[in-house]
Amino acid sequence: MEFHVIQRCGDSRARLGEIVTPHGRFETPVFMPVGTQGSVKALSSDDLENVGVKVILANTYHLYLRPGHHIVEKLGGLHRFMSWKAPILTDSGGFQVYSLARLRSISEEGVTFQSHLDGKKHFVGPEEAMAIQMALGGDMIMSFDECAPYPADYAYVKNSVRLTTLWAERCLEHKSDDNQALFGIVQGGMFPELREESAKSLVHMSFQGYALGGLSVGEDRETRRHVIEKTVPFLPEEKPVYLMGVGKPEDIVDAVLLGVDMFDCVLPTRNARNGTLFTPQGPLVIKNARYADDPEPIDDACGCYTCAHFSRAYLRHLFMAKELLSYRLNSIHNLYYYNHFMSEIRSAIRQGRLVEYCQHFYEGRSGSPDP
Amino acid sequence: MEFHVIQRCGDSRARLGEIVTPHGRFETPVFMPVGTQGSVKALSSDDLENVGVKVILANTYHLYLRPGHHIVEKLGGLHRFMSWKAPILTDSGGFQVYSLARLRSISEEGVTFQSHLDGKKHFVGPEEAMAIQMALGGDMIMSFDECAPYPADYAYVKNSVRLTTLWAERCLEHKSDDNQALFGIVQGGMFPELREESAKSLVHMSFQGYALGGLSVGEDRETRRHVIEKTVPFLPEEKPVYLMGVGKPEDIVDAVLLGVDMFDCVLPTRNARNGTLFTPQGPLVIKNARYADDPEPIDDACGCYTCAHFSRAYLRHLFMAKELLSYRLNSIHNLYYYNHFMSEIRSAIRQGRLVEYCQHFYEGRSGSPDP
Repeated sequence: MEFHVIQRCGDSRARLGEIVTPHGRFETPVFMPVGTQGSVKALSSDDLENVGVKVILANTYHLYLRPGHHIVEKLGGLHRFMSWKAPILTDSGGFQVYSLARLRSISEEGVTFQSHLDGKKHFVGPEEAMAIQMALGGDMIMSFDECAPYPADYAYVKNSVRLTTLWAERCLEHKSDDNQALFGIVQGGMFPELREESAKSLVHMSFQGYALGGLSVGEDRETRRHVIEKTVPFLPEEKPVYLMGVGKPEDIVDAVLLGVDMFDCVLPTRNARNGTLFTPQGPLVIKNARYADDPEPIDDACGCYTCAHFSRAYLRHLFMAKELLSYRLNSIHNLYYYNHFMSEIRSAIRQGRLVEYCQHFYEGRSGSPDP
Repeated sequence: MEFHVIQRCGDSRARLGEIVTPHGRFETPVFMPVGTQGSVKALSSDDLENVGVKVILANTYHLYLRPGHHIVEKLGGLHRFMSWKAPILTDSGGFQVYSLARLRSISEEGVTFQSHLDGKKHFVGPEEAMAIQMALGGDMIMSFDECAPYPADYAYVKNSVRLTTLWAERCLEHKSDDNQALFGIVQGGMFPELREESAKSLVHMSFQGYALGGLSVGEDRETRRHVIEKTVPFLPEEKPVYLMGVGKPEDIVDAVLLGVDMFDCVLPTRNARNGTLFTPQGPLVIKNARYADDPEPIDDACGCYTCAHFSRAYLRHLFMAKELLSYRLNSIHNLYYYNHFMSEIRSAIRQGRLVEYCQHFYEGRSGSPDP
């Protein structure tokens, strides 16, 4: 993997960059839709391409449990399995082990847990996380981390950083495929000094990219912004910075200004399935009765397939009738929105008007159609 | 609507035909996928076009209840509402009133029933059925009928034929849009003499097409074949014959040989959602463990999007994980199968080798991959 900074932004840490992987290149800042179980929910690879998606994330934990990384490997790796030709990033599995699995016990070796699917016992440590991600064959892979709960006290988080550092070293040792770029994950909860400690240890080991983990776990926006601001300066400028699991458009704008290059979040696709649609004016809740006979598209300035073909009335009908097509059309719209939004951010950096764009963005969201 | 017989088959009543409607033409024998609630489940209009579908069916009963025919009319009719440019046939609502609604009471005026959605009381008679279908704007519409249960005794069915005839006359009187072709529905249960009586009464009124209703309600294949054989000769050769709600590929072959031109059935899409996939060798049940690491497509001779891109292993994974994409990919395959199957039947008629084709078809199905 290569990362090039194409242009910096005068008034902030934001930068326009490019990542080159064995499955193609994409520009940053970038948003990666989440393909949890080998599918970005409700969408095919063609849909993603048509929306303009250039890179997706897949969940190591889910694919390890089902269908199993050995099956994916036997079928030629995740790209071929799901027929997605562009770059894939796999997460470490750490976050899901802590948020989904049951009866966890954590030791220096790794984590023993019960599958949320069938209660079966599993063990995953850094060596296993590498073996699984090598079998899946993602272009970017993540070191195995311990994601502290929120809130967590200083002593807990300090130990969590220690484990994460220890495991990161073992991940580096066990990762053997040069086609895969390994990212280290900075932990440290909401404590800037622990974030600094974590970042410095990881940077010392020299990863190909750095992720900020353990955020978007319940903290408020100001806290998150503060933690990012106090962490990014300790990461090398020539490596991409990835903020895991974030977030809302406003959270992305915040983080881009602080120097973050990569994002992933289930929000656009999950909201789509819940009938909450993104617009430049804020969220539109499609089940509202006012849309029952509304002939307008979700957003008449949007260029997505859904907005080009269907009225709010039809989309409301599909949603109320629980038609499967509802989830797909809504997901196409929301991902298009996110993708378009990221390309606007990149254009603004390129044209040296990011701060102006962000100002305009924050102001525009006061006029939500469904306040 | 125009119907032209292009070619007859020497050894059977089968014929190759063409139907021309205000929204385009299609060849017969044809299979119409069912778009119950303004969507062929899990598929968009683009998907249907890509599969090669030329005409779809929509359910009057469902659209009347939700979103309501007035809303569809206000949004420009069903074609525009669901963004489907090709022909649409709407059914009479009769069958669903009898199979889905509760607390029905039937009089000469029509049927009073409770919605299966919210228990609300509704009345639909022939005049209402015409008003609803005119609002929906289908190219082909159906007269309101009474579909006898199965089994039903002679006296019940005789009265059902009487009501259906009475209502058919009132439908003809109330139908006022020349862009819509009205079909009469032949009833008569499993009694050939009542089918004959029903057919003769309707033919006397001169509809633009004739449907066989009240079949595929639980009777065996031989009985159905017998009823069709004893009914079709009483219908005019220059009008299309539509067998409602049928069926399996073998049932379609049976009926084509007996002179039927049009079919609809939820089978390909419903089976798709249940993970049963059609192949020339018979059904393939995708959840079977033997497909867990199978790199082959569903059917390597199939030209559909699903078979071109995905392995049985991936499709099994999506199905087991209840991923929404599973329903769409399976539906694309099954509808492609049906569409391809109908085009093979039409080619066979064109080339004068239908009986040979049918023989080959019946034999091929003995080698089902999932017996």
